[in-house]
Amino acid sequence: MGVDLSIEAEQAAEEIRQFIARAVARADAAGAVLGLSGGLDSATVAYLAAGALGPGRVWPFLLPYRASSPESGAGARLVAEALGVPLTVLDVSPQVDAYFACVGHPTPIRLGNKIARERMSILYDQAKAKGALVLGTGNRSERLLGYTTVWGDMACDLAPLGHLYKTEVRRLAAALGVPRAIIEKPPTADLWPGQTDEGELGITYQRADELLVLLVDRRMRERDVLALGYGQEEVRLVRRWVRRGAHKRRLPPCPRGARRR
Amino acid sequence: MGVDLSIEAEQAAEEIRQFIARAVARADAAGAVLGLSGGLDSATVAYLAAGALGPGRVWPFLLPYRASSPESGAGARLVAEALGVPLTVLDVSPQVDAYFACVGHPTPIRLGNKIARERMSILYDQAKAKGALVLGTGNRSERLLGYTTVWGDMACDLAPLGHLYKTEVRRLAAALGVPRAIIEKPPTADLWPGQTDEGELGITYQRADELLVLLVDRRMRERDVLALGYGQEEVRLVRRWVRRGAHKRRLPPCPRGARRR
Repeated sequence: MGVDLSIEAEQAAEEIRQFIARAVARADAAGAVLGLSGGLDSATVAYLAAGALGPGRVWPFLLPYRASSPESGAGARLVAEALGVPLTVLDVSPQVDAYFACVGHPTPIRLGNKIARERMSILYDQAKAKGALVLGTGNRSERLLGYTTVWGDMACDLAPLGHLYKTEVRRLAAALGVPRAIIEKPPTADLWPGQTDEGELGITYQRADELLVLLVDRRMRERDVLALGYGQEEVRLVRRWVRRGAHKRRLPPCPRGARRR
Repeated sequence: MGVDLSIEAEQAAEEIRQFIARAVARADAAGAVLGLSGGLDSATVAYLAAGALGPGRVWPFLLPYRASSPESGAGARLVAEALGVPLTVLDVSPQVDAYFACVGHPTPIRLGNKIARERMSILYDQAKAKGALVLGTGNRSERLLGYTTVWGDMACDLAPLGHLYKTEVRRLAAALGVPRAIIEKPPTADLWPGQTDEGELGITYQRADELLVLLVDRRMRERDVLALGYGQEEVRLVRRWVRRGAHKRRLPPCPRGARRR
């Protein structure tokens, strides 16, 4: 329907590697830490970071909660071994459980958010200990849809995939040689058993990405998008995600202040 | 030396109350949560929020670490009682200590950052449970100097004091009737015993605020600021804080991307 989500993979990869290398050099940092979840995005960032900095300056962390899928750990180990980077595993359950023991059993969403923020907090602590930067693993689809925990997985020093849609990340990952098992696994935040991104979003990434290009990048009106053959329900769904996620794409607002100093 | 940090307190207070009330209404939120530390900024936000929303819709949290000063707790209780809002106390030590038990004893900075991010994570969780917004308590001095934990105390839904310098907050607090004991206490993040903001910054807030107005708001050159009678050392100190804190005032950068979609 006129939306091209193909990608010049080698050019995109080189651009990201330079972005990482320059930012690390400018910050005079020892390297970069990242959370390796066993999923597509973090595997792709690990490949790019190892290419940009060399494997000796990339420190991935697997930060499982006790309900996390063992499969995620296997994916993370596969990536770390392929790249020759040492994987550190830290269980976040003691901290997360200690909190909810005080305030009572949470909903899955609250548990997921607490885990995502604990992971961010650990990555920043480890980065501070090593004099490193924190690489985020979020992509443009998640950012525009607001499908991210605010001050959790969206919080990082650099967002190497922040300009790429999920569909594009998948193609980039294939070109980089990320293992097929990781590329083909259904995307999930792995915050509770059986969770999948597409199940929660109510739409596939392929379809959402096409609509984001039309509605956000090309600023098309709803009726023009419908005229291309998209359904009203999916268009409204994507618009609702974008609208509800707006506060996740800006720093906290403050009053304007009446006075000039 | 030509820098006026006086404030029209009633006008500033009304502006902030409207800012809070409108944001809560627009988000269709039940009210607001905030961390009450016993210090000036959070006490001031509590007074303004109670004025904006009524005391029944403001939920303050005292989130001490085991090394936190008992005096802080006393200040927070004083404010909560004066406003008639229920104060919830949750000790963050179990979570923080569980983490460092795994990775080893931290430096004071790392401990302080971990505590600040744990507090943010708890405030967001409690806000989610109540359908409320998170009020930040940071001011413009902290923001410009970068004297804040990134994704910690700077992370919030609304920053009601984000446009006011610390010197201005102090004057606003006095006009609002915040207890003198709180206004006159030396500012501290209370992240380790004996910590004071001004000791860490190496300059008083009064002096830093004057220099921020000149260097940032009025964009004056260094030599013109020196000609007003300020010392070279203090000017360079403030400029260094501002420069080093720049990354805390923006969202994570991503590559620009070569391709238009």
